[in-house]
Amino acid sequence: MSEVVEGREALALLERTREIVDPRLRAALGSLPGAVRRVALYHFGWENADGSPSAGSAGKAIRPALVLAATDAFGGDPAAAAAAAAAVELVHNFSLLHDDVIDEDPTRRHRPTAWTVFGTPDAIVVGDALLALAYRLLAEDGHPAAPAAAERIANCVIELCAGQQADCAFEERAPEEVSLEECLTMATAKTGALLGCACAVGALYAGAGPDETAALDSFGREAGLAFQLIDDLIGIWGDPGRTGKPAGADLAAHKKSLPVVAALGSGTPAAAELARLYRGHMSPAAVALAADAVDRAGGRDWAQLQASERMARAVYELSRAVPDLAAAGDLLALAEFVTRRSR
Amino acid sequence: MSEVVEGREALALLERTREIVDPRLRAALGSLPGAVRRVALYHFGWENADGSPSAGSAGKAIRPALVLAATDAFGGDPAAAAAAAAAVELVHNFSLLHDDVIDEDPTRRHRPTAWTVFGTPDAIVVGDALLALAYRLLAEDGHPAAPAAAERIANCVIELCAGQQADCAFEERAPEEVSLEECLTMATAKTGALLGCACAVGALYAGAGPDETAALDSFGREAGLAFQLIDDLIGIWGDPGRTGKPAGADLAAHKKSLPVVAALGSGTPAAAELARLYRGHMSPAAVALAADAVDRAGGRDWAQLQASERMARAVYELSRAVPDLAAAGDLLALAEFVTRRSR
Repeated sequence: MSEVVEGREALALLERTREIVDPRLRAALGSLPGAVRRVALYHFGWENADGSPSAGSAGKAIRPALVLAATDAFGGDPAAAAAAAAAVELVHNFSLLHDDVIDEDPTRRHRPTAWTVFGTPDAIVVGDALLALAYRLLAEDGHPAAPAAAERIANCVIELCAGQQADCAFEERAPEEVSLEECLTMATAKTGALLGCACAVGALYAGAGPDETAALDSFGREAGLAFQLIDDLIGIWGDPGRTGKPAGADLAAHKKSLPVVAALGSGTPAAAELARLYRGHMSPAAVALAADAVDRAGGRDWAQLQASERMARAVYELSRAVPDLAAAGDLLALAEFVTRRSR
Repeated sequence: MSEVVEGREALALLERTREIVDPRLRAALGSLPGAVRRVALYHFGWENADGSPSAGSAGKAIRPALVLAATDAFGGDPAAAAAAAAAVELVHNFSLLHDDVIDEDPTRRHRPTAWTVFGTPDAIVVGDALLALAYRLLAEDGHPAAPAAAERIANCVIELCAGQQADCAFEERAPEEVSLEECLTMATAKTGALLGCACAVGALYAGAGPDETAALDSFGREAGLAFQLIDDLIGIWGDPGRTGKPAGADLAAHKKSLPVVAALGSGTPAAAELARLYRGHMSPAAVALAADAVDRAGGRDWAQLQASERMARAVYELSRAVPDLAAAGDLLALAEFVTRRSR
């Protein structure tokens, strides 16, 4: 299968997912009380701040697509997992609303973040409401797998919280005080956990057993970590494609991304140089020097190797859970799509 | 039954509730990841900020006591509802953590609030984690009523969010623009909904039918609103007992409490005087004038009458759900305790 075909396949999957899940999401958001609903619809890109309809995008729907593809891979009916897929997307958006408040991010999906438009209190309570709404969807679903899915999602949310908490705590510490191990655990919690949970929930909705469900969770987690590593590389050296952030963005923001932490822990002269640069203001010249130092300290090679290894592990876990490659094809296409954003 | 005996009975109920629910809560909080756990244990008053054990109080446990008393009232086994009672207490504490961030409250239960000690990001994510933990307890519970309880709690959290959102929105509006109806809806959502939900969850755990469960929800809501009205009166004229806030506290803070909004909407000369006072700085002299204006505008009488009426409705709903007064005794004692805090 060529790369171009794989990319197209993933886009078609995401499109089909939107057709199945969006009506559920719109109905769920529509059930929220007025002022809460308005903020939620703005955040999803379906309304402007003044309440008029917006053609904006509600995100790529990767997580619900993973739910449906996992159900399909185990011979289940994806349509029967629509509420669960919508619940996972609500959890994702709850975490985005709160993360944007915590990180004081001004933009999300090319629009001002909800907290900048409606204020921090509204962004907090509407995030809370989306999390509760996810549980309402599961409670109302009536599918035999819904209780197990609710339990997995609860554990995943706790892991997301721990990841976000660790991320904030790292910001307070000097770069050389954060170990690579802590950083990998944090990235797994923040990025891998919900992708793994989405896959596991889909498996549960097809009646998959505990081993298969656990393997599919690992598949999502490893693919998520591969994505994070590649995203971190793009944050330093830029996107080889056309959609990513500009080169050096993460360095300019003093971000302790995985390649940076790997470089700082290398014990090389380049690590000491990088630590010194990170203590000061990151001018464009300093950013260029820091990128070079990360490279010379081995951070770039390490991240690229890790990303490949994580992706290989993801494929291995997928093959354990779903030995028939034809059945696993959609999940593989989504994982490839997530980790190669330039397509 | 004399008031003193009723008060003692409620205190004994709260004590027994703590014995049943605290071990569950401690085990649940103990399962949280390290840094998240630390903030949670601080918030519950079980640890100091440095992680050393604290003899502090984790609150009065009114809501879990209502769960257990409701289960008991319908002939169920309160011990079987322990996880549900712990879940309701976790939801209460999730909302306290977020409300303290939103309202920028510096103290809670005579200690610095979590956000002032650990920062706003930690208070947000730990609140999120407590909500997820509530759902984990219900998902793991295995009781046949757990899914229905999870659904009720999800709806209640959405109502809590709407109430908090409305409260913030009212702050932005001029006092005379907020209608009494809106204010009552907000108070019901913020204070009544979770008390009603606690009662309803307890009823579900005893296998009560939809009508009885709905009546018990109304009992808790009406008692909650009675409590809020009395709390608002105390916020203006002080606590006749010894435990409440100082007289005038809510007026000094320009709070649009129920007696104030009722007074402002009265169309009396005193209403105009109150509106004028509320537009300026509230000096001690202005606070005294404002309290007098609320009284002359009828806000005090209205609130006292409303509180009595709400309590009467609560008792009526309770008698519909549990006709045997002996069986309803504990719920009644808790409602009386909540609404007469001076004992």
